[in-house]
Amino acid sequence: MTTKGTDKVNIADKFSLFDELWTPKVIAQMNQVQFKLVKIHGEFTWHSHEHTDEVFMVISGHMTIELRDKTIALSAGEMFVIPKGVEHKPYAQELCQVMIIEPQGVINTGDTGGALTAENDVWI
Amino acid sequence: MTTKGTDKVNIADKFSLFDELWTPKVIAQMNQVQFKLVKIHGEFTWHSHEHTDEVFMVISGHMTIELRDKTIALSAGEMFVIPKGVEHKPYAQELCQVMIIEPQGVINTGDTGGALTAENDVWI
Repeated sequence: MTTKGTDKVNIADKFSLFDELWTPKVIAQMNQVQFKLVKIHGEFTWHSHEHTDEVFMVISGHMTIELRDKTIALSAGEMFVIPKGVEHKPYAQELCQVMIIEPQGVINTGDTGGALTAENDVWI
Repeated sequence: MTTKGTDKVNIADKFSLFDELWTPKVIAQMNQVQFKLVKIHGEFTWHSHEHTDEVFMVISGHMTIELRDKTIALSAGEMFVIPKGVEHKPYAQELCQVMIIEPQGVINTGDTGGALTAENDVWI
């Protein structure tokens, strides 16, 4: 089921459709920019995205984004733009629901790859 | 005060900084895409954006987006992508807080212009 540009999207309803961690699901697209939902818990891998900025917007819960020079703590209703090329490591002590906004085609593990790499461009 | 890429952004805090209606304020930017907050109440003008899609995400309250062939009702936690070139008229019976996501340079009244046209690219 996709909602590509034809219907409104209820963010909570979309979160209820999956339980997997660290696997972004696309819920909307504006031009070439995708809006993805992801559930996170625990520690992700250090990575960066060479060609694009990336937005994390926390929908519920708390998370941190570790950068090499500081740590950003985000709660529901807060967002942060990770600049292009900046290494970052997301972490959530408890389950956290996040919206990621970034161009179509961006891979979740960026230039690092590895076991946490999720299938890309999966719509719900 | 801007937060261009250096700090986290708290959406509620940013809404507390202004009361004007129909005047989008930029709070973040990802590549060339801007995240704008706007307070709306009453009826806007029919307009379209020839060159881009536009996202409305309701943060608090309720709004409708009238299209020529249907009306989209949005509440907090819901979003809608208005496709490029599609005429739309936002409306809110009571005060509603909205995040708009669209490329830098998009004018709020699109191809229509008029008295409701807001200054563009204003950061808070």
